[in-house]
Formats: sequence, structure tokens, C-alpha cells
Amino acid sequence: MAVIGVSREENKVGHVVFNNLISSFKGKIYGVNPNADYVLGFKSHSSIKDIKDPVELAIICIPAGFVLEAVKDCAKKGVKNVLIISSGFSEIGNIDLENQLKDLLNKNNMQAVGVNCLGVLDTFSSLDTIFIPKNRMKRPRKGYISFVTQSGALGLALLDLLATENYGFSKFVSYGNGTNVDEADYLEFLKDDENTKVICVYIEAVKDGKKFMKIASEVAKKKPVIIIKGGKTEKGAQAALSHTGSLAGSQEIYSSVFKQCKLIEVNTLREMFNLAKLFEKLELMNLKPKGKKIQIITNGGGYGILTADSVSENNLELPEISINLKKELKKKLAPIVTVKNPLDLTGIAKDSDYKFVLENCIKEKDIDILLTIVLPQTPLISENIVNLFSEINNQKKKPLVVISTGGDFTKFIKNRMEDQNIPVFEFPGDAVKAIKRMVDYYNKN
Amino acid sequence: MAVIGVSREENKVGHVVFNNLISSFKGKIYGVNPNADYVLGFKSHSSIKDIKDPVELAIICIPAGFVLEAVKDCAKKGVKNVLIISSGFSEIGNIDLENQLKDLLNKNNMQAVGVNCLGVLDTFSSLDTIFIPKNRMKRPRKGYISFVTQSGALGLALLDLLATENYGFSKFVSYGNGTNVDEADYLEFLKDDENTKVICVYIEAVKDGKKFMKIASEVAKKKPVIIIKGGKTEKGAQAALSHTGSLAGSQEIYSSVFKQCKLIEVNTLREMFNLAKLFEKLELMNLKPKGKKIQIITNGGGYGILTADSVSENNLELPEISINLKKELKKKLAPIVTVKNPLDLTGIAKDSDYKFVLENCIKEKDIDILLTIVLPQTPLISENIVNLFSEINNQKKKPLVVISTGGDFTKFIKNRMEDQNIPVFEFPGDAVKAIKRMVDYYNKN
Repeated sequence: MAVIGVSREENKVGHVVFNNLISSFKGKIYGVNPNADYVLGFKSHSSIKDIKDPVELAIICIPAGFVLEAVKDCAKKGVKNVLIISSGFSEIGNIDLENQLKDLLNKNNMQAVGVNCLGVLDTFSSLDTIFIPKNRMKRPRKGYISFVTQSGALGLALLDLLATENYGFSKFVSYGNGTNVDEADYLEFLKDDENTKVICVYIEAVKDGKKFMKIASEVAKKKPVIIIKGGKTEKGAQAALSHTGSLAGSQEIYSSVFKQCKLIEVNTLREMFNLAKLFEKLELMNLKPKGKKIQIITNGGGYGILTADSVSENNLELPEISINLKKELKKKLAPIVTVKNPLDLTGIAKDSDYKFVLENCIKEKDIDILLTIVLPQTPLISENIVNLFSEINNQKKKPLVVISTGGDFTKFIKNRMEDQNIPVFEFPGDAVKAIKRMVDYYNKN
Repeated sequence: MAVIGVSREENKVGHVVFNNLISSFKGKIYGVNPNADYVLGFKSHSSIKDIKDPVELAIICIPAGFVLEAVKDCAKKGVKNVLIISSGFSEIGNIDLENQLKDLLNKNNMQAVGVNCLGVLDTFSSLDTIFIPKNRMKRPRKGYISFVTQSGALGLALLDLLATENYGFSKFVSYGNGTNVDEADYLEFLKDDENTKVICVYIEAVKDGKKFMKIASEVAKKKPVIIIKGGKTEKGAQAALSHTGSLAGSQEIYSSVFKQCKLIEVNTLREMFNLAKLFEKLELMNLKPKGKKIQIITNGGGYGILTADSVSENNLELPEISINLKKELKKKLAPIVTVKNPLDLTGIAKDSDYKFVLENCIKEKDIDILLTIVLPQTPLISENIVNLFSEINNQKKKPLVVISTGGDFTKFIKNRMEDQNIPVFEFPGDAVKAIKRMVDYYNKN
């Protein structure tokens, strides 16, 4: 891999990118800068053509005016993949320059991420071209969510937040102007990526409608694609025009296209990533619910009630507990426990009570999903609950979803459960909304 | 203050309560336990009657069967206020026992928090009767939100989460069965509490409809009351019946009563506390928006677009920037900046760009609220932005609301801004939804 435009100045993009690559990427890295001998201890080449080894990817971070020349050099060197971070093209009116670049790329059968983008992060190959230092943007751990975004800053902010919240990512692409590779191309690539179990997309406009519809429908058959569109309202669409020059188009048409392609359209970023987490865990466990019958188990009465409200409002079902199961449960549980749906273990719940209830419920025909509220403030809950839940989850019989709200101890439990592929949500409404969309998706596929 | 039922056993409620009080409460504390000489280094009294000083509040944590006797002793000692943590009354069918207790309390003009409750936390007097150790539930810092909840575990989980998120609370009450003091009484008390700027309420049922309506309407005239009701659906209502014996009643009737009393009904806990934070900060700054015209300022294009969408969807307004202001702004800002609404400073935004834009926008007649997106991943944002925003906010001319998404550095900025009474939200949708409810409230009041 080569970085064209490495710099000795610490705050320059070419320096940060090169520095990040040195500390993360496992393959060979070369720097190109005709005005420096060494950068960060690496020999600097005056042109990409001077590098003896073959170059698989060239990352270009030089002013727009020099990009065409650099791409020509790449073509001569036989480089097929470039990532052009440089801005100063169509987004500020230099449409001719971008068209020339596009022709040049196409003529040489080259593929470009960008222009005017933040680049790519791949946790599996440890490729990280994002020119934001790690103290400003935490990098996510390895995971199976991939995220394609037209807006770079939006992507950075979300990655930073979600990395902090223990989300795992596979690939992240900020594709900027999408000069000769667009959102549909990224979807097509991710379709066959075995490290991607669910795809999240932020777009302001689709570049080529027909192509998008064809590819998106194929991808959605294979794995869930969650999409959010910026510029749905008139005011938002005006802003999109100034942002990426996108003609946002009619929301009705977009929504009906998404629906037709079986993409899952969401209204908020929070909804997108709640749902992505749920899909990631279930796909990893190869767990699909048979239907929409939900058994709620809780140690907090009020939370059980709010969750039951949310289940009903989302047209999911709360089946009655069967007579046999009721008998079985009542034998062992304290008399204070309400053996209904929601099943309320109350504040005296122990880890082993949850285990006992879950083990029985998982065998029931009339329950499709186990929605379990664990409020770990109560003193009889211990961290061993993670192991007990994990044993249930590893039976791979029914989706097990957890709701847990709280501070440090709660987050410790949550992260450990998620590491065991149990999805955990902070609020009843978040969990139930995600379950509703997930059930609908599997019903249709 | 006296604790009836102090125990030497570490995991007993009476021990934890006493221990928490010793380490937090500033006044004098007495323990009552006829079977111990000393508990936690404090002399133990065999009856509350043996304490020589007057007792302002007695906290009772003994089995239900002994509570009547203890309350009689309190009456003889002249104690007017008791907090009865003990459970085992109407919630498990012991209705007679609870009625006897109620009569006894009323006859002696005594007021009881509880029975069957977690008690009270008051950050201003440092009173904390919650029997959950601090490693399981973080205590919130001093603030001006008060929270009244019928469900104890729900309250614990939320306090723990929100304390971690830098929320400040004034009073917290888990009132359990509400034996002789109900939700309306707590509202009435909080109406005149100068340390309460906004009230949050979780209820499953109102005990006395007429009383509630009279008091709630009075309180809502003086300060915002945000309410969430458990048991809105048939399934949720069934669960409420098993939980607190509450007859949840028709949601339509409840909602229309809340509306009539000008309470703000919300559907999710997240919405409740987002809105509470907004009200707390604005009330502390004595800032009310004149109308619903919002200027968006951002350093991330996509975030600006999603926020504009959300503003339109919520029927708030995005005014055009006036010709004069546009001229003024264009003079100094980089050509890449989009001087519209949203105003997009792009990824090159510096702290001083925000300051310049805000200083100009705050003088505009046609802007009521400044909604500012700060994505601090971009390298030119520094922590000094907190001071600059604080200067603008301290002019007290227009509400300044911030949206900021990210990890550690973002949360550092967020917490420092909130300490300066600037409300900060994680997602565009959260901020705009809260602004919408806030604008509606001030329009009606």
C-alpha cells in the first residue's frame, strides 16, 4: 500500500493517515513525497513509479490540482485501486475536473473510493485510512456490522460513539462524491463479504436508480440492509443539495423503492444501530424467530409493564403462559413472583431464578422470543448471570434479547453479554421497536 | 432522624440504610434495635421512645407484622413523618393490615412515605434512604430535576443510568403503595420546592382522580410536569394490576386528563429525561423561546440535513437567513461554508467560527432557538468551545441547544457544557423532539 502525499507536518492529512497505517496495518507501506527523504522513519519515494514492489492500493491525499497527475502515475504503475481523500471537486463546483478524473479512472479500469471522503476502515484486515487521531475518534472492535455513508462527519461521530458502546464493526466506508464507485457498488461488495452480517447505509441520494434497485434487491435477499435517507423533507432536501450536490428527490418514491427492494428504512440513527446490533447477534447465532410471540421476564414491575405496552403497540403478541408451564414455574419460584406474561421475578430475583425460568420457557412451543429485563441494581444479581444467559443462548433455540438500564455495573454486564452474542438494549421501547422490524424482515424473507 | 430496625447483618435493609445515612446525611442519626447494643459504632436504642432528642423522621425497615407497633411508638414520641420501606401489605393481599396502618397514621396526623417503597433521595439535604449500595447504584449529583415514581426498580435503574450521564437531580421519591401520601401530595410538595425546576412522574394509576386533577393543574401552571403512564395497553394494564394492584383504567381518559391539566405526557423514558434536561437548563437560565423558528448550525453536513428533516417533521420552522446577516457571515467565513439554514461550517470549523456565527445569530429577530451541532471528532474543535458557548448562553437572549455524538472527548465536552447549563443531546431526533414539546409547553403557559 502507498500513501501519495505523506507529510512531515503532524497536522497534515497525509501525515495522520500514514501514521495511523503504520500503527495498524499489517502489510507493507510506502510513502510518496518528492520533497522529503524520510517521513516517520520511512523512506519517501518521489513518485509511486519508483516503488519496486507491486502496489495494491494507493491513498491519495494531495491538493485537487495534482490528483489527475498522481492517478496517471498510478495507472502507469499498474495500480487498480485508489482512495482519493482530496476534496475540491464537484462539491465546490469543479465539475469538469471531477469528470476528467472519472474518465481517467474508467479508461484505466481503476476503482476509486472518494473523492472528497474519509476513506475506509476494515477491522479484519486492520486497514484504517481515517485521518482522525485516535484520541478524537475511538476505533471500533472487530464485529459484523458494515456501514456505508455518504456523509463523512456523520460516520466519524457514530463510529466514535458506537465503539465506546462496545459495538463491533466489519467495514466502514465514507465514499464522498462517489466519483466512479457508488453506493450500489459498495452494497454489491458487501453482499459476498462473509464478515458482514448486516449493512447500514446513510445516503442523501441514489446515483443510478436502476442499478441501485437491481443490486439492493439482490443484497437484501442475502442479508439485512438498514437504510436512512437524509433530505426527506423539503428543507432537508435543500440542505442535501448544498452538501453533496445530491438531488434528494421525492421521499415517497424513495420509500417505495426501498420497500420494493426489501431494504429496512429507519427514521433515526439510533433506530438504525439498535436494529443492526440485533441482526448482527441473531445472524451470528443463526437464530431466527418462528413468529412474533414474546415472553417478557423481568425483575422490575414497572419495566415489565412499559415493555408489555410497547409489545402491544407494535402489534407483537404476548401469549398466556401454558397451564403446565405455570405449574412447573410456581413449584420453585417464591410466592411473591407473578407467573404471567410479563413474568415478574421482583426485586428478590437471583441469577438462578432467571436460569430456571429461561430453561423452561425455551422449551415452550408458544413462545418465539425471550425478552428479558435485568435491572442489576438489585443486590442478588451477580456477574454470573452472564454465564447463565450465555448457556441458554448457546442452545440456539430461540432469540434471547435483554433490556438493562444503569451505570457502570450494568454496562459491564451488558458488554459481557454482547460479547457472548446476546443483544442488550437500554430501554424497553428501543428493544421492542428493533424486535418488530426484525420479525417483519424474517417474515418477508 | 431514626432508623427502626438497624441490623448488624451487612445484607439486611436496615444495615444498608443506616450505613448510607451515616456516610451521607449531615444531621443526627439514631438507631433502634432492641436486640443490639451497638450497630456500626452507634448506640442502639431499644425503642424510639428511648431517644431523648426530638425525631423529625423515622425510617422503618422491619417485617410488616411489627410495623403497626413501631408506628404507635412513633406517635407516642411525637414523630410526624415516617418512611416505611417494609413490604408485605396490600401488594400481596394484606389489605386489612394496610388499612389499619392508614387509619393509625391519619388518626395521629402522621405522614408516611411507602409502604413497600425504596424511599427518598434528596441531593440538597443529602438525605438518602435507598437501600442499594453505591457500587450498584450511582447517586446523581445535585440538580433541579425531581422524579416521583410508583415503581421502585424502574427508579433505581434510571437514577443509576442518569447519574452516569451527568444528570442532576433534586428529589427522588419511590412511594410504593402510597398508603396515606399519594402522587398528588408529592406533586403539591414539589410545586413550592425552589430546588425543583421540572418534575418527572411515572405512575400506573392515579389514586384519587379529583384531587389529582386539582393539584396537577396548579403545579403545571408553575413548572413543567412530565408524565409517563404504565399500563396503557390492555396487556400492560393487566400487568399493572399484578404489580401495584393498580386499576390502570382507560388510556384515553388518562391522556385527556393529563392534557386538560397541562401535564406533558411522553411515551418513552428516554423522551422523558431528554425533555427534563432541556427544561432544567432553560428554567435555570430563565430562557424561554419567543417562537418556533430554529437556526441550525453544524460542522457535519449529514447531521445538518437529518436535523432539518426532523425540524420539519415536528412542525417547527427553519427561517431563511436574512440578507444582511448572510452578508455579514460571508465576509468572514471560508467560501466552502454554506451560509443557509442549516448553516454548514463543514469539517474545517474552528471554535471561533461557531462563536462568530452564534454572536451574529443571537441578535437576529427572526431566530428563536439556536440548534448547534458540534461533532468534536474534527481536529480544529478544542475544549475551549465550552467557554465560547457558555459566553453566548450567559447572554440569556435565546435558548442554545447542542447536539453532539461521540466517545470520550465528546462526552467530556458535553458534560462541561451541561455544567454551564447548556443542554446537549446525542442525536438530532432526540433534540428536536424535546424542543418541540418545550415550545408547545411555553406556548400554552
